[in-house]
Amino acid sequence: MRTPAEVRAAIRARELDEPTAALAPGFAQANLVVLPEADAFDFLRFCVANPRPCPVLEVLEPGTVEPVQTAPGADLRTDLPRYRVYRRGRLIAEPSEVEWREDLVAFLIGCSFTFERALLAAGLPVRHVEQAVNVPMYRTSVACRPAGRFAGPLVVSMRPMTPDQAVRATEITAPFTSAHGAPVHVGDPAALGITALDAPDYGDAVEVRDGELPVFWACGVTPQAVAQASKPELMITHAPGHMFVTDLDERDRAHR
Amino acid sequence: MRTPAEVRAAIRARELDEPTAALAPGFAQANLVVLPEADAFDFLRFCVANPRPCPVLEVLEPGTVEPVQTAPGADLRTDLPRYRVYRRGRLIAEPSEVEWREDLVAFLIGCSFTFERALLAAGLPVRHVEQAVNVPMYRTSVACRPAGRFAGPLVVSMRPMTPDQAVRATEITAPFTSAHGAPVHVGDPAALGITALDAPDYGDAVEVRDGELPVFWACGVTPQAVAQASKPELMITHAPGHMFVTDLDERDRAHR
Repeated sequence: MRTPAEVRAAIRARELDEPTAALAPGFAQANLVVLPEADAFDFLRFCVANPRPCPVLEVLEPGTVEPVQTAPGADLRTDLPRYRVYRRGRLIAEPSEVEWREDLVAFLIGCSFTFERALLAAGLPVRHVEQAVNVPMYRTSVACRPAGRFAGPLVVSMRPMTPDQAVRATEITAPFTSAHGAPVHVGDPAALGITALDAPDYGDAVEVRDGELPVFWACGVTPQAVAQASKPELMITHAPGHMFVTDLDERDRAHR
Repeated sequence: MRTPAEVRAAIRARELDEPTAALAPGFAQANLVVLPEADAFDFLRFCVANPRPCPVLEVLEPGTVEPVQTAPGADLRTDLPRYRVYRRGRLIAEPSEVEWREDLVAFLIGCSFTFERALLAAGLPVRHVEQAVNVPMYRTSVACRPAGRFAGPLVVSMRPMTPDQAVRATEITAPFTSAHGAPVHVGDPAALGITALDAPDYGDAVEVRDGELPVFWACGVTPQAVAQASKPELMITHAPGHMFVTDLDERDRAHR
């Protein structure tokens, strides 16, 4: 069992290049969004207006790459397994490290991988961990609250469970308010505008067994769907499922 | 018992010019901070880094005065009983309405008046309501996390209680995370650098009875102490205790 610093060092050394679910259990994981300073205020307002998909863990000083509050000593240019680079809303690269500019501002946003240890500890299934694939994520027909130039759809992650398990999972995840909290929907993909559970927009499909329902949580990939709609000059993010592992305790309350 | 809209209308008509504790019970009240857009991103980062004193309920679009999320139809220029205007950190006026500029951005921040109905319902004392004075508030020696140009001390509000009552009040207020949540300290003013309980920095002194301890909560007047330290060109705020009454349910969770 590696510590967060050990996970980040392995990623930096390119010994680890995979989705980060179940790595460094007990510690909060984070979505990354990097934007030019000119767009940063609008984006932070977007996060504040949409706390379910975008709970903010830390906003770095412009031009800096070390998240001093959540992972002192880390480097956001190298310590995630994979990045995505969007130019005017178009995905142009998926590198394993990124360059920085003086005017870039990094945002770390809570991630649902953070509560998966608690689900597993309660005997609940986390299918993508069982199947060793990336979590399935879907663009929905639910609009986020717009802020300045940023508007777009809510993205959700999905874990299949029986109805009883879904109730228990709701109880368990509700207190994790800086990791998306309780599910946003249980049961009917069409209610979220999702037409094909077996064709996620991000990540991999997982098996939904007899008697199970899809359980949907708000997802920190939302800013990437928003980038595609809002087309900022540049947005750098993590690749879906390839998160930043912080030093924060998974149950940390100071960050909500 | 007036609704929030009725309270705001009475304030706008100057029929009501007093601290807002216990008005429109059941609804969230808010601290106001207004800054030029040039300082707005740094200030919002300051709030995100200091969620106990500065839980953000809404950030308005630059230049606008209607809080469409928390009180549609309201006008932040007229709907608070009293304002404070700080120029380069110096308090220069305390008007009952304010002018607006195109470049001003308004922030609404949660307020501890929001949880006082729950305290009273549990039979706990809220001394400033009993005594019909403003809540006592104190600048502390605890530094907030700085962000950009904004740095300064934590401000706290105080309610005297017996130790047993303080425990119960902690249980009750902890879930109100967008209204400062649980106390930051119980019992020893000196631990917060407070030398005279009977001489608050804002609001009025209240009686602390035999067997009671001072119970301190983080306070949304913190930005005013920060303004005095950080000296932005202009900062408009509510006058301490003279809050904006929103339409949000006091227990609203969507805003945390």
